[in-house]
Amino acid sequence: MIKARIVVTLKNGVLDPQGKAIEGALGTLGFGGVGAVRQGKVFDVEVEGSDRAKAEADLKAMCEQLLANTVIENYAIQIA
Amino acid sequence: MIKARIVVTLKNGVLDPQGKAIEGALGTLGFGGVGAVRQGKVFDVEVEGSDRAKAEADLKAMCEQLLANTVIENYAIQIA
Repeated sequence: MIKARIVVTLKNGVLDPQGKAIEGALGTLGFGGVGAVRQGKVFDVEVEGSDRAKAEADLKAMCEQLLANTVIENYAIQIA
Repeated sequence: MIKARIVVTLKNGVLDPQGKAIEGALGTLGFGGVGAVRQGKVFDVEVEGSDRAKAEADLKAMCEQLLANTVIENYAIQIA
């Protein structure tokens, strides 16, 4: 069993209204020195087997096909 | 300027229907050996100043007050 974490973030230049809303909310709560906030997604995936190379290839395919919208999002795969 | 990444994940035992849906979708797409999938959130936050201890305390307070629901979610703060 291989455990992996996939982090999907918006590409630079893509507007992030959710992040902007969080920035505003943090300001309202009194956190003064907060700069940009960007929100992304994280997926913890368990893959059967012990072949790390195959798992990484599979995880990449999962990102391309389902987990990330590669037009506007980047993804990073960390295998534990 | 301090850059930090906050990862918010559901606690163990908390149902994750979104993760279950992704698991199902990956199976439908032909990825056979996928075990549990859990979805979480990631926030990339920029904090002004260079005092890492103060930044970490502020980020912890942000998580407690806004970014995480500590009843059902864990958070992890990574300062770059």
